[in-house]
Amino acid sequence: MSQPSATHLNETHDPSLTSWVARANDNEVGFPIQHLPFAIFREQGTSQAFRPGVAIGDQIIDLAALASLKPFDGQAAVALAACTGTSLNALMALGDAHWSALRLALSRALRKGAAMQAQLEPLLVAQTRAQYSMPAQVGDYTDFYISIHHATAGGKQMRPDAPLLPNYKWVPIGYHGRSSSLVVSGHDVLRPVGQLKPATPDGDPTFGPCQRLDYELEMGVFIGTGNPQGTRIPIEQADKHIFGLCLLNDWSARDIQYWEYQPLGPFLAKSFATTISPWIVTREALEPFRIPFSRPATDPQPLPYLMSESVKGGGFYDIHLTAQLSTDQSRKAQVAPTTLTDTNLDQAYWAISQLVTHHTVNGCNLQPGDLFGTGTMSGPAPEQAGTFNEISIGGKQALQLPWGEERKYLMDGDEITLQGECVKPGYPRLSFGQASGRILPAVI
Amino acid sequence: MSQPSATHLNETHDPSLTSWVARANDNEVGFPIQHLPFAIFREQGTSQAFRPGVAIGDQIIDLAALASLKPFDGQAAVALAACTGTSLNALMALGDAHWSALRLALSRALRKGAAMQAQLEPLLVAQTRAQYSMPAQVGDYTDFYISIHHATAGGKQMRPDAPLLPNYKWVPIGYHGRSSSLVVSGHDVLRPVGQLKPATPDGDPTFGPCQRLDYELEMGVFIGTGNPQGTRIPIEQADKHIFGLCLLNDWSARDIQYWEYQPLGPFLAKSFATTISPWIVTREALEPFRIPFSRPATDPQPLPYLMSESVKGGGFYDIHLTAQLSTDQSRKAQVAPTTLTDTNLDQAYWAISQLVTHHTVNGCNLQPGDLFGTGTMSGPAPEQAGTFNEISIGGKQALQLPWGEERKYLMDGDEITLQGECVKPGYPRLSFGQASGRILPAVI
Repeated sequence: MSQPSATHLNETHDPSLTSWVARANDNEVGFPIQHLPFAIFREQGTSQAFRPGVAIGDQIIDLAALASLKPFDGQAAVALAACTGTSLNALMALGDAHWSALRLALSRALRKGAAMQAQLEPLLVAQTRAQYSMPAQVGDYTDFYISIHHATAGGKQMRPDAPLLPNYKWVPIGYHGRSSSLVVSGHDVLRPVGQLKPATPDGDPTFGPCQRLDYELEMGVFIGTGNPQGTRIPIEQADKHIFGLCLLNDWSARDIQYWEYQPLGPFLAKSFATTISPWIVTREALEPFRIPFSRPATDPQPLPYLMSESVKGGGFYDIHLTAQLSTDQSRKAQVAPTTLTDTNLDQAYWAISQLVTHHTVNGCNLQPGDLFGTGTMSGPAPEQAGTFNEISIGGKQALQLPWGEERKYLMDGDEITLQGECVKPGYPRLSFGQASGRILPAVI
Repeated sequence: MSQPSATHLNETHDPSLTSWVARANDNEVGFPIQHLPFAIFREQGTSQAFRPGVAIGDQIIDLAALASLKPFDGQAAVALAACTGTSLNALMALGDAHWSALRLALSRALRKGAAMQAQLEPLLVAQTRAQYSMPAQVGDYTDFYISIHHATAGGKQMRPDAPLLPNYKWVPIGYHGRSSSLVVSGHDVLRPVGQLKPATPDGDPTFGPCQRLDYELEMGVFIGTGNPQGTRIPIEQADKHIFGLCLLNDWSARDIQYWEYQPLGPFLAKSFATTISPWIVTREALEPFRIPFSRPATDPQPLPYLMSESVKGGGFYDIHLTAQLSTDQSRKAQVAPTTLTDTNLDQAYWAISQLVTHHTVNGCNLQPGDLFGTGTMSGPAPEQAGTFNEISIGGKQALQLPWGEERKYLMDGDEITLQGECVKPGYPRLSFGQASGRILPAVI
């Protein structure tokens, strides 16, 4: 596989590196020394302060504890010193040179044969013992809509005559989301209540629990350094502002959404909960998985402010994404979850760096810890549909589950688990962990 | 004027009270002892920490300095102790009993003949010497759309066949806004740049400075105490969660908006800047200005979750609102600004308490310091139009300005100043101060 021009590989990406943490070298585990994602964690069942950690194998290295040893110099030391709070915002604010220096220092310290092994071993916490919190304090959360397949499939149900609007191929469409109700994997999700779309166009709305509760398989993008209000982030600089990626489930109440969304967009249909995975996979770790930006030649090409050599050469990422469903019945019967969605971030119509630049083109200021959602990453094939709304064609067609039940939308007790991974020949597998949430009955 | 049933008047609302701060008793000034709004301020040209203050006459009482004197007892003491930071969030989080206790203690301390006068006099800062910052750290900002006249006027331009959508009379329509770009009165506003709506339906968008820059005369609502995720704020409790109101200018780039807003709502058309006034007028101060909720009998009445005796008896507020324009030319000629909009919050179709309850009906959590915008408060008369888009009928008809210029939208150098006041016979006038911003040329 030829290397795309826009990757920035360095010592930390050497596929032959191994770690003294044994399970780091196991491809099944998915947290090799080439990976090193960040989370905020503490030990379960304790009242410890939450603190930053980095995954290595089946362990977490406690960065707050490591910081107290002052083991690094220069930018790595500054970056590590920013890893003592209850969120990653301070680290995010430092910028990509500091993130990279810390990554290199951690890579060297965790390598097989590293002199620091004895010093670091006591700072490891088993992932099985960890409890996670939100990795960052999110000031603003923006949800985009970058799969043209999702936009078309969803659009068909609301506007059969014009599923894809004229702006889609020009504008990376996005809207502001709700920050306060972001939760980390494992939080239960209460079925929302609200005004539901009338059964007939002239009918009155009903009030009650959502009957068309859905998931949306997305990725989250954490912004590292921001920009002052009134300035723009040029497309050539956009990558430097991206701290990393996670999984994101944009839970959606379709019957609330279709009633409320005109003319100002989705609101209560989305704001009851949005679940993310605890691990933020850094942009630097994803460099080996860049792929060129591509778009049909018959489509309008992005306006100049959204294009660069870096976008052209490696604007997209190859990240395999799945959504799995278990139900009360399947768990009781101890049947494995079924895969609802099997897709890839390569289905994007817009590059993530283009989202950063577009978001700031009007002078809007981004801040460290801001979160973007990509929008549902559906592909064109049926198994790539990233929502029940697409799978059931707006509730018209039930999905048969392997254990005998059927679903058009989510029922109480249903659990959705998003997973992601980067896989390519000759390189260790990188896991995104998971973003999981179970539906609890509505409270009236 | 008969007293509506839902007001909660107390000692602090006695119209006969006067203050030992001389200008507090001058109706022209608009900050009487019945008022006592909150801001975050410091003295201009200093590097002092910003801190909470309360307006009285032409002065500000420095609450951080007052807190160090520990002059109050009980809930007033607790509330005052929360007034030492650089935002009002800590005070907001305490709840309405504490806000009310602090208001009563301040009212007593500032009254003519108060024993505390000598102690408080050194803590006054003249408003002419003050610099303001954002009164709260806003976690999430939600913009509503509660004037049916604005919804209809704006709707006509985008959907001439169906200006008012079927959901409008059922759902208090709102959308998530951008928190990071909220600014306080006095900040200049850079003309935004972006993709502009094509001239013809099949045309390509252009890229450049917004040509249809607009203001929107709104009010802001600061949430005090929030609610845990998964719970709702019942309509009977909603008022208790409202800390206070301010002025809000939702600057809007119409040519960006009309290109980007389908299907997910306004985004970059709004996110470059939103200006608020520095003073938050507490809900308690506004009690004497409540007026009954009203709606044409032929319209659907609000669903039960949105109605209460309190809404019925006093759900609306009588707040007089204006927007004024000055230009480079008018200021050079020393001509007074011209009034673009002269309206009132009584044009609302939804009560503010209904917005609180609706926002949380799905379990969405509000947090102290969250901000709502009401949406443009246009009334049915031409002089009540709250945007240039309504005044110029979408840019079709120029407004003649008294000094010889004309305008369809905002030009560089134009300054919009929002003002608000509560006025009724036999009660001192309450001023909202102002929310002002001047347009600077785009930076390309």
